[in-house]
Amino acid sequence: MNEANRRTANSFLSIDPDTHLIGLDWGTTQLRAYRFIADGEVAESRQLPAGIQRIGPAGPDGFERAFEDACGDWRAATPACPIVACGMIGSAQGWREAPYIDVPTSLDALGHAWTDVHTASGATLHIVPGLIVRAALPEVLRGEETQIAGALDIALDSAPDRWIGLPGTHTKWVRVRDRDIVQFHTFMTGEVFAALCDHTILGRTMRRVPPPVEPAAFDGDAFDRGVDVARGSHGRAGVLSTIFSTRSLGLVGALAPPSQSDYLSGLLIGHELAGFGALGGLGAPPLQLVGSDELCRRYQRALAAFGCRSALATNATERGLWRIARAAGLVPSAIARPSNPQD
Amino acid sequence: MNEANRRTANSFLSIDPDTHLIGLDWGTTQLRAYRFIADGEVAESRQLPAGIQRIGPAGPDGFERAFEDACGDWRAATPACPIVACGMIGSAQGWREAPYIDVPTSLDALGHAWTDVHTASGATLHIVPGLIVRAALPEVLRGEETQIAGALDIALDSAPDRWIGLPGTHTKWVRVRDRDIVQFHTFMTGEVFAALCDHTILGRTMRRVPPPVEPAAFDGDAFDRGVDVARGSHGRAGVLSTIFSTRSLGLVGALAPPSQSDYLSGLLIGHELAGFGALGGLGAPPLQLVGSDELCRRYQRALAAFGCRSALATNATERGLWRIARAAGLVPSAIARPSNPQD
Repeated sequence: MNEANRRTANSFLSIDPDTHLIGLDWGTTQLRAYRFIADGEVAESRQLPAGIQRIGPAGPDGFERAFEDACGDWRAATPACPIVACGMIGSAQGWREAPYIDVPTSLDALGHAWTDVHTASGATLHIVPGLIVRAALPEVLRGEETQIAGALDIALDSAPDRWIGLPGTHTKWVRVRDRDIVQFHTFMTGEVFAALCDHTILGRTMRRVPPPVEPAAFDGDAFDRGVDVARGSHGRAGVLSTIFSTRSLGLVGALAPPSQSDYLSGLLIGHELAGFGALGGLGAPPLQLVGSDELCRRYQRALAAFGCRSALATNATERGLWRIARAAGLVPSAIARPSNPQD
Repeated sequence: MNEANRRTANSFLSIDPDTHLIGLDWGTTQLRAYRFIADGEVAESRQLPAGIQRIGPAGPDGFERAFEDACGDWRAATPACPIVACGMIGSAQGWREAPYIDVPTSLDALGHAWTDVHTASGATLHIVPGLIVRAALPEVLRGEETQIAGALDIALDSAPDRWIGLPGTHTKWVRVRDRDIVQFHTFMTGEVFAALCDHTILGRTMRRVPPPVEPAAFDGDAFDRGVDVARGSHGRAGVLSTIFSTRSLGLVGALAPPSQSDYLSGLLIGHELAGFGALGGLGAPPLQLVGSDELCRRYQRALAAFGCRSALATNATERGLWRIARAAGLVPSAIARPSNPQD
């Protein structure tokens, strides 16, 4: 594995010929490539700064080049290997638009609604469709459907239902019942947090360590305080009002500048969860979180304040790419898995 | 009046010697100066791009120069004329910090809590203090106290109580009872709207006419639609969730790009009013709005959707500067005014 992870000028020799699937998680800023061997084991993975926002302006040639960079050597070694891609590569700004499919839908149906790209090098890329809820307030997602498919491969209590939370720039809360996605809700919590910190007066009094240099220490007390304000009686005023306390508590010396960012983070996540609760989300179905460790831990902590337990699902994207390919018959189901109690 | 408004190189000749008060509304970006004659009539006004954010970095000299530019000729003609200033000039980043005074407070007390600046040219500038609510979530304002004093000079039904709304970057809702400010709440609606439009994905699909070039036509239907979403059952999800519909409605072709900005504006103002209502703000006491015509009309429209009438108060800052100076005995009370029913 370590050997395989090291990419060399002539890396063909180190590639396991038993490659069953190439999976691409092709998002806005990054392109992640996975080489799967038997039973969905990831033998090798790579990350390139080749998201669609970066290479899209170069047109189809940019996508072709990034694709070759990501997995050209894997394909040369196993030319017949199927390739599945998920994420923004299937958006209107991507390589080819993969139309949304309507919710409710079975997750196993995702692999029957590919949009194919035939590359200049002769490969066929199966792009997983995103999902849409056509309602008074429509909802869309793209990329998360694959993570959900992966998360579902992880047993969670014995319940058929679950809510899967995918914290991020746009957090999604997705309701799954019997392997069907039945509804979901978007919260722009991550993007609003960034905009407030970087482009409003709230950011001016924060003392933040630039994350790429050195991650700031997490101030759990400040975070919890923000969550408590959001879920308590003050939270009724709504997030447009409570966020001002990030500044006013600082003005009266009751919230130190280095704590303000985590306080605001707790406030926003707390308001998100209060809103999610109002939509029926903090009831009986168990909760499962998919995303970065750091962010998921914040959500777990905030959920605990709301009296909710939540489980973490790791490697959901890789699991999902494999799961969808297997449901579509692209890869063998070598090992019989225990069937879902509801199947 | 028209003659007096025209500033000339040798404008002394045109200055009415009967100047009773010079009032300065000295904010973050602008400095507005008012020359008052008898009974608080504004004989002349000026606006300079000399807010504290622009001239503060030059230190005290910058403030001195801006002060001379704004009213040096008025002072030369009537050297004994008192000078009152309100706004961010009294903040920690201003000329001199004017400490907040605690709420509840009588509005007539504002003029007994000046902070004075003695200028290099021998003038004394009385800076009106801002207000603070010391509570679990503190509230502060600076500048609005003067507008409130002015708005109270305008009769409103026969009610002793009122809520005064001051829409803007940070909207304030201020509860007044018997000329006392008893509480207030901040909503960062204006600043959040700007940050969402300019620094999140929501702005990317909006087609906005840059306001300084040509004001975009107001799309009342889109605005109302946003208000209705916020105050209806979808609003329970909270603003972090509903704002995403600005984009998702656009994606499904149900909200044209030029309408998205007004839809988002309606959403945010609607969520603000829903939060204000949860704080008890949409009940019996009448509502009065102070601010720009365009913004106040949006608030009136949104309030109407909530079943609330609201009155507009014009020229509140000028009225308030005069009112506070008069209460402090700086200017004569030449004409007896009808007393407030509660006095």
